[in-house]
This record gives sequence, structure tokens and C-alpha cells, in this order.
Amino acid sequence: MSLSDLAHNAPMSYFQQALELAAHSLTLSNPNPRVGCVIVDADGRTLGQGYTQQRGGPHAEIMALRDAASRGEDVVGSTVYVTLEPCAHHGRTPPCCDALIAARVAKVCIALRDPNPQVAGQGIARLQAAGIAVEMAPPEIEAQAREINIGFLRRMEHGVPWVRLKTASSLDGMTALGNGDSQWITGETARADVQHWRARACAVLTGSGTVVADDPLLNVRLPGTTRQPHLVIVDSRLRTPPTARLFSVPERQVWVVTVDRNTPGREERAAALRAAGAEIITLEAGLDGRSDLRALMQELGKREVNELHVEAGAILNGAMLEAGLADELLAYVAPMLIGPGRPLADLPTLQRLSDASRWGLHRMQEVGEDLRLQLRRKPS
Amino acid sequence: MSLSDLAHNAPMSYFQQALELAAHSLTLSNPNPRVGCVIVDADGRTLGQGYTQQRGGPHAEIMALRDAASRGEDVVGSTVYVTLEPCAHHGRTPPCCDALIAARVAKVCIALRDPNPQVAGQGIARLQAAGIAVEMAPPEIEAQAREINIGFLRRMEHGVPWVRLKTASSLDGMTALGNGDSQWITGETARADVQHWRARACAVLTGSGTVVADDPLLNVRLPGTTRQPHLVIVDSRLRTPPTARLFSVPERQVWVVTVDRNTPGREERAAALRAAGAEIITLEAGLDGRSDLRALMQELGKREVNELHVEAGAILNGAMLEAGLADELLAYVAPMLIGPGRPLADLPTLQRLSDASRWGLHRMQEVGEDLRLQLRRKPS
Repeated sequence: MSLSDLAHNAPMSYFQQALELAAHSLTLSNPNPRVGCVIVDADGRTLGQGYTQQRGGPHAEIMALRDAASRGEDVVGSTVYVTLEPCAHHGRTPPCCDALIAARVAKVCIALRDPNPQVAGQGIARLQAAGIAVEMAPPEIEAQAREINIGFLRRMEHGVPWVRLKTASSLDGMTALGNGDSQWITGETARADVQHWRARACAVLTGSGTVVADDPLLNVRLPGTTRQPHLVIVDSRLRTPPTARLFSVPERQVWVVTVDRNTPGREERAAALRAAGAEIITLEAGLDGRSDLRALMQELGKREVNELHVEAGAILNGAMLEAGLADELLAYVAPMLIGPGRPLADLPTLQRLSDASRWGLHRMQEVGEDLRLQLRRKPS
Repeated sequence: MSLSDLAHNAPMSYFQQALELAAHSLTLSNPNPRVGCVIVDADGRTLGQGYTQQRGGPHAEIMALRDAASRGEDVVGSTVYVTLEPCAHHGRTPPCCDALIAARVAKVCIALRDPNPQVAGQGIARLQAAGIAVEMAPPEIEAQAREINIGFLRRMEHGVPWVRLKTASSLDGMTALGNGDSQWITGETARADVQHWRARACAVLTGSGTVVADDPLLNVRLPGTTRQPHLVIVDSRLRTPPTARLFSVPERQVWVVTVDRNTPGREERAAALRAAGAEIITLEAGLDGRSDLRALMQELGKREVNELHVEAGAILNGAMLEAGLADELLAYVAPMLIGPGRPLADLPTLQRLSDASRWGLHRMQEVGEDLRLQLRRKPS
């Protein structure tokens, strides 16, 4: 590699460094985007670096400026690499672009424009108005920057979360035997892996059937966990027992979603659930289940859910899939054949194969003895 | 890497070269093993190389000696790398170890002993008795040498073929809709890939149900195909139509396997199938389907089938799996969800998940838009 190649590649490697920093925000910064920032001097020496902290905490740019200050580095005239356009608005923190302007940096290299209507180019405009050069990253960096904030971007651009539906099935598509025995389809490593996907989500979605049948916690049990995703329970008849174990998880909001407002005893059950710690979300009942779930996605968008992690039974899985609301399948496949059993989703019987939902393989990986597939919905 | 490292690694690279040569025999040498051979002089220069030819043709060692001769190379005192113990018996060709002795090579490096009872160490003994040094390969080379001849070794060691059962299903385990629509679950690339697996098999196995329903050819349609695997049809009631398209494939034996000898009209149907080109194999009917299929595997072993490629419907797949006769699953998984449909195998309903057959993931690969998994049965 020649020196000119190195010079040409340098910005790429700083962007990569910034993306690696952003990854530290993965389970931390929700509902804020995951952002990383690196400040370098004219010689390419790193002066400071940082990533976005917990909700209400400092953003990546502020962390990087503080890091440089704590190391006694002078950032005047420096170049800043950041994975998302610096914010231009007073949200839970003051605008990052003002901090960069005040620090008199010379140039800001940005991986991705922030589609947040409160930013949307204003960050860039403010920097440029202050005489700071702004450079956008090449497409491959932009793609990586989109990927890490796939949920935040979905919410900003469409008002709904990015929905990741997790399944664990045998090679022949079963999640349990007909008699319910499912202990365990996938192995310990795969079950531990699921914890990381829950941890990065803003909320976990399940159905009351799963709650009644399995009494699960559906929380994150990784060492050092500081933030629990909210738990959303689709429960039109308010069947969730107020004594369910899920209410025992501290510092987690539990949202019980109901549509049926005319069932006898409903108010008593709602009151008992509220006493157990739940918030009851009552949606307008639609003509069919689909519109309810669509309305729920809108509601979760308003509640700042970026990534929604679905761990549910066949009925809710089927309803989400049939309504076209799952963006990604996180499918754990155990290398076993179990014959007749419970399918991973209750789907309607098709008449033509061309009507089947098609997915693209995004990533695949061995996880212990099992296989983890990430698939993304293709436009139909 | 130091020079001593290079010297130490050299035999490994010659063995690798020999293994790559053996891969050229993959679709060619059946039912003979796939063998590659490299002859090198004291300076490590390649004098000749070869691989085993079609049934009745020269083995790898003879091809390598001929190659050296054709290039005017003197092999006296040379070192021979070969992926399987040279044969010591007069089979369809004279013994290779005699040819190596006559050529006065100094040393033979062997990746794997031949378990063929007609060889089984006698090749090595004959070489040593003639004053030729014999060296066995390290375990990682031996493992690769076993892998390429997995079917030959299974037959030599157990008298039965290595059974590779191919499936093509959706992510939810279906091979077709309930109404039979399966055009197509997997994509063109995956269907083309199947051809290569058929091509390496000694025989393809299917059931009469598939023949009646789909009228398939089940042949190899790759350009340059010189050898068609035999076709075996499990057909207890002799339902295969003598007009089936599969009889139109030239130079292929079709074996129709039946057990039921008391059906009215059976002799007429058998005669018509024979007239169409089939050989009828009548097995002793066992007490259940399992013993029939076990007897069939023994029969196919006697008929020199090394790798048996199963492409069948749910019933025969289920019977093979339930009888524990499938050694490997070649599972193409299409990234789609189709809901209720035809399962990849008709399996009995289990009462306990621990009774499910478990498989180990051997390899996985994207094939076009689909996924190809190779799984191997775990001891239960």
C-alpha cells in the first residue's frame, strides 16, 4: 500500500473507529440513536472519542470533546468524525453542533444525515454557517451507519418501530411438540444469544397467551445490565394475571394493550393490572386484527420505541406476519426434526405459492449447535 | 515463515495437491474411490500427477506414473503422495502397489488406509516388503481423505451406502402448499446446485409416489456429464408407469424395488416395467417398513452404491428418517413462510422432545437466495 493510498483510506478508518464507538451505545442510548465520534488533529492523531450515553445523558460529540479536554488536547482546527449528523435542537441536551462550533473545530465528517425532523440538515447548515467544513461519508459507511440505527431511522422516517420477530424452531419449522413440550428446542448458547437482542431493543412484545402459558420474565439478564426494555403485552381480553412473574422485574414499564372495552369485569382486571404496575393502553378496535396491530405500531412509535423485539406464540407471530408488520426475522433453527407440532406462526392457507411472504437472507451464523438466520422482508 | 517451516509443511501441501486431484474423480470414478496422486523428486518438483478414472479405468497412481512418463521424467527414487492406500489386489485393474514397486519409487506417503478387505494394509505391507518407505499423513489430512470418500468408506466398513437425503423447504418446513403447488420453493441456483449432488452419487433414490405425481427425470443434466447415477424407485405395489419419462434417460440403470409379491396383476406390471428398461428388485417383506428399507440399503451396498442421494416425498423421507437410515441431510431452505402445507417428512408424533432426532451442522452456505445446510446425524 502506497502512502497516498493510506492518506486516501484514513477517513474510512476514522469512520470505522466512530462506528465501533457507536456500537457501545447499542444497549445504552435508547431511545436516542447509537452514535460514535472521533476527533483527530491534522496529523491524524486521535484527540478524543466518545459515544452517546443513556437517555438524557451526553451525546457522542460531547463525550469526545470532554475526552479531548480531559487529556489536555486542543481541538481547535481539528477534524471530527461522527456517525450521525450532529443535533441542532434543544432536546434532553443542548445542541451538539453548537458545542462543535464553540470548540472551533475545522471540519466535521458525517456518516449519515439525521432524518429526525428536528435535525434534518439543520445540524449541517448550522456548522457550515459557522465556517466549519462538512463532508459526507461514502455510501458504504453511510450504509453501516444506517444499519446500527435501523430502528431509530424507521421511527423517524415512518413513525413506527423496526420490528424484529424472534423464532426458535426445528428444521421442520416447529417450536414445540403438539403436547407443548419445548424444553428446549434450541441450545443454551442460542438462548443466551437472544438476551443480546432483547437488550438492544426499546421494547419486547409478547401476547397474553405466552404470559399465561409460560409465565416468562422476558427481561434482560446479562451481567451489567443497566436498562431493561419495556414489555408490551397484546392482551385484548386482559387475561394477564396480576401475579405474573413479569411484574417482578424492577425499573421496567409494562404496557398491556387491549382493544376490547365491553368485556364484563374488564375494569376490575385493568385496575388489578395497574396495581401490579402495568399501564393499560386501549386502542380503537379495528374491523380486523390487522388494523389493531398497525395502530399499536403507531402507538409504540409515539412512545419512542426504535427496535421492537417480538417473542410471541404462533397466533401473535402469525398476526404480525400476516399484517406485514415484521421487518426482520431473527430465526434460530435447531438442527433437529420433530414431526407434527406447533408451527412458528399460525398463517392462513395459501392457494398459490407466489402469495407466500418472501424474505432475503441478511446474515447467518452458527450459535452453539444451532443456526441463527436474520432475514428481512422483501417488498411484495 | 522460516525455511525449516517450509520444509516441514511441504508434505502437507503435496497431500493438499493430491486431495485437489482426487476431487476431479468426484463424479467420475464411482463406484471406485476418489483418489489423487502426486509424484515429486528430492527437490520437491512435481514429476507427475493423476486421479482415478471411470470404473475399470486406471487408478490415480497409474495416471501419475503415466503423466511422469509422458513428460520424460524419471521417477526412480521419487516420493509419491496418494490420498488412499494403493491397491494390492487384481480388481478391474492390476494392483497399483506393483506398479509403484516396478517404478522403483523411494517413498510412498499415504493419507488413509483402504478399509477395503481386499486391500486393508496389504498395499502398505507389499510396498514395505519391496524396500519402499511408507509414511502416513497427519490426522487433518486423513480426515479430508475420509471426507471425500465418505460413501466408499461407509460401504467398505458397513456394507451400506452413505445416505444423503435432500430436502427443499420453506423456513417453516414446508415443501409445498396443501394443494401441491411447489413451483418453486427454492430458486434456480439451488435447483442447479442439486445437480452436482446427484452427479457425485452412485444412485438416486425416490418413491413411486413422486414418480406418479411429478413424472421426474431425476438425472444429471450438467454439461459434460458422462455418467448417470442409477435410479432406485421404492415401489412396493409396482405403480411406476412404464411410460414414465425417467425411462427415457439413456445409459442409466433403473431399479424398481418391491416387496409385495401377492398383488393381482403384479407379474404383468413387472414385465411391462422390465420391457421399459427396469430391473425389478424383490426384497423379503419384513414385519414393518423399516426392515424393508434396511434390507434395501444392504442390497444397494452389494450393488456397489457408495453415496445414495435421496430425493423423495414426505412418506419415503419420513420412513428413511424414522428408520435412522439417513446419514446426512442436504437441506435447502428457502427464505419464505408459507403456512399450512406439506411437511418435508411424515414423522410420527413424539411425546417427548428428547426423542427427536438430532443433527449436527456440518456446513452451511448461501446458494442464490436460498440457504443450503448439510447436517449429519448424531448418535442417539
